[in-house]
Amino acid sequence: MKKLINDPQQVVTETLEGFALAYPDLVEVHFDPDWVERKVSKDAGKVGLVSGGGSGHEPLHAGYVGVGMLDAAVPGPVFTSPTPDPIVEATRAADKGAGVVHIVKNYTGDVLNFETAAELAEMDDISVETVLVDDDCAVENSTWTAGRRGVAGTVLVEKIAGAAAERGDDLATVAAIGRRVNENMRSMGLALGPCTVPHAGKPSFDLAEDEIELGIGIHGEPGYRRGHMEPADSLTEELYHRVRDDLGLVKGDRVIALVNGMGGTPESELFIVFRKLAALLEQDGVERARSLVGNYVTSLEMPGVSITLLRLDSEMEELFDAPAYTPAWK
Amino acid sequence: MKKLINDPQQVVTETLEGFALAYPDLVEVHFDPDWVERKVSKDAGKVGLVSGGGSGHEPLHAGYVGVGMLDAAVPGPVFTSPTPDPIVEATRAADKGAGVVHIVKNYTGDVLNFETAAELAEMDDISVETVLVDDDCAVENSTWTAGRRGVAGTVLVEKIAGAAAERGDDLATVAAIGRRVNENMRSMGLALGPCTVPHAGKPSFDLAEDEIELGIGIHGEPGYRRGHMEPADSLTEELYHRVRDDLGLVKGDRVIALVNGMGGTPESELFIVFRKLAALLEQDGVERARSLVGNYVTSLEMPGVSITLLRLDSEMEELFDAPAYTPAWK
Repeated sequence: MKKLINDPQQVVTETLEGFALAYPDLVEVHFDPDWVERKVSKDAGKVGLVSGGGSGHEPLHAGYVGVGMLDAAVPGPVFTSPTPDPIVEATRAADKGAGVVHIVKNYTGDVLNFETAAELAEMDDISVETVLVDDDCAVENSTWTAGRRGVAGTVLVEKIAGAAAERGDDLATVAAIGRRVNENMRSMGLALGPCTVPHAGKPSFDLAEDEIELGIGIHGEPGYRRGHMEPADSLTEELYHRVRDDLGLVKGDRVIALVNGMGGTPESELFIVFRKLAALLEQDGVERARSLVGNYVTSLEMPGVSITLLRLDSEMEELFDAPAYTPAWK
Repeated sequence: MKKLINDPQQVVTETLEGFALAYPDLVEVHFDPDWVERKVSKDAGKVGLVSGGGSGHEPLHAGYVGVGMLDAAVPGPVFTSPTPDPIVEATRAADKGAGVVHIVKNYTGDVLNFETAAELAEMDDISVETVLVDDDCAVENSTWTAGRRGVAGTVLVEKIAGAAAERGDDLATVAAIGRRVNENMRSMGLALGPCTVPHAGKPSFDLAEDEIELGIGIHGEPGYRRGHMEPADSLTEELYHRVRDDLGLVKGDRVIALVNGMGGTPESELFIVFRKLAALLEQDGVERARSLVGNYVTSLEMPGVSITLLRLDSEMEELFDAPAYTPAWK
C-alpha cells in the first residue's frame, strides 16, 4: 500500500490537524472525540445544521462547515460511522435555541448513531429534526444500507438547507426544505477501479483490466452491473437514463447537474462526462439551470464519477445561489 | 487503459467543450485552434495576461481565466506545447492597448512557441513581456527542459501578476511582479505512481510496488532519486528541507505554503502532508502567512504531491489577497 500517511490508525486525526491549520479563520477542530465547528459567529436563534459520517469522502463533510452551510461536522473513522458522543457534542454546540437539523446519509451505522445522539440531545431540551439522504438510485439495500444509499447529492442538501437556516427559517422549515431536496434528487456513479482504506491495507474490491462497476457505492459497495470499459459518452448515457427515469424528469423541468469526481479521476474526464450529460439534458428539453463539476464527495483515491440531478423549484434555486463561505465551497 | 474518454485524440477538445458548457458566464472557448478567453468585460488599458501549455494539468491554465487572473489560456495537446497560432490569437484578444504578459512554464516547446508568438504579436504592434516560471528545484535540466522546470508555483504567478494587472499596473510592472514571484518561490514534488497519457495508452513510467519518485516532474519526468515508501512526515521533511535551503528561507521570513495534489491523491493525504509542513515551518521560525491545500496543478491522475513555498513581501501579499473570480479560483 502506497499512501502519504504515517500510522494508518492516525489518518483521521492527522487529516483534521492539517485541516485545522489550513483554515484557522473558518473552523475550530475538536479532538477526542473528533468534530469540527464553524468558527464565524452565528446569530442566536439560527437553526443549527450538523452532518457527519465516515471519513474518506473529503471535502464532505468538514469542508462544508462555514457560513451558509454546516455549523458542525462529525467525521468518523475512514468509511465508518462516528459514535453518538461527538454527534451529541456537535449538536449541543450547533444549538442556538432554535433546534438542530441532522443531515444523515442513509447507512445503517450513521442512522443508528445519529438517532441515539438525537435522543440524547433531546434530553437536554434540544429539538432535533433528521433529514435522511438516500439519493443513490443504483440499488435498493446494499452492504451497509437498508433502502437506498446517500451519496454525492448530500452536498446539495447541505448547501440548500444551510442557506435556509442562514436566512432564519425555523426548524421545521429547514428540515422540510432538506427533505424536499432529497426527494427531488437522484444520483448514480461508476468506478474504474477500487480505493484502499488505510487500516485495511488492500483494495476494497477487484476489477479486471477492462472491467468497470456501474452503480458503485461511495465505499465501493457493489452496483447493479459489472461491464467492460466503454466510451465515456455511452457510460454517461446509461447513468443519465437511469437517473432521469427514476426521478421522473420531464421536458420543461429545471435541474442542477452535478458531475462528481470520486478522488482519482482527472478533471478533464469529469468535463468529458459533463459535456455528454449537458447534451442529453438538452435533447430531453430539461433546462440545466446550474452546473457543478469537481470533487465534491470522494471515495479516497477511487477513479470514477457520479452524476446527480436535482429538480429545482424557485425556492431551492434561490437558496442554492445564496452566498456560502466554507473551506471547500466559496 | 481505463479512462472516461471517447476518442484519445479528442480528449482536449471534448474537455474544453464541457468546460465551456459548465462556465458560460465566465469564459468563452474558441476552437481550432483552441484557446480560452475571459468573458467578463475588461477595462480598456488593462495589461493582458496569457498563459498556456500542454493539457493534463487541469485546472491549470483554463481554470484560472477570469477576473483577477488570466485574460486567456492556451491549452495544447496533453503534455505538449500549443503551437504559436492560438497563442497569437489569445495575445491579440488579451491586448487592450497596454500590452500583454506571457506566463510561460520553462519547457523547451513552450518557451519556443511563446517566443514565436510574441514576435508575431509584436509585428501587430502589441508589446509582449514574458515571465518564465521555473520554480521546481528538484533538478537542473530535464526531459523537456533546459534549466529548471515550471510546476505548481505557476498558479501563484498567475494569481499575483493577475491582481497587479487588474489593479491597473503597467506592462513592465506586471512583468516585474511576476518575475519577483518566480524568484522568491521554489517547489518540489514526489509521485507514488505514474499517470497515463490518453494517446500514449500506457503509464508514463514504472515504479515497483514499494517505490516512489522524489523530485518528479509534472509530466512524469525523472526526479533526483527513487526510494522506498516512507511515512508522510519523513517525505515531507525531505521535500521541505530541499525547498527551504534552495530558497534560502530564514527565520522571520513569511511564506505562502501550497500543498498541491497531482490528481490522484486523496484530500486527506494532502492535509497530512500540510500538517507536517506547517510544523516544520514553525520550527524554523518561518511564518506561514497563507495556506493552500488542493489540486491546483495536476498531472492527470498521478498519485503524488508537491510543496511550494513563496517568500512574501507586503505587495505580493496584498495582491494574493485581492479578489479573483475564475472557474477554479474564487
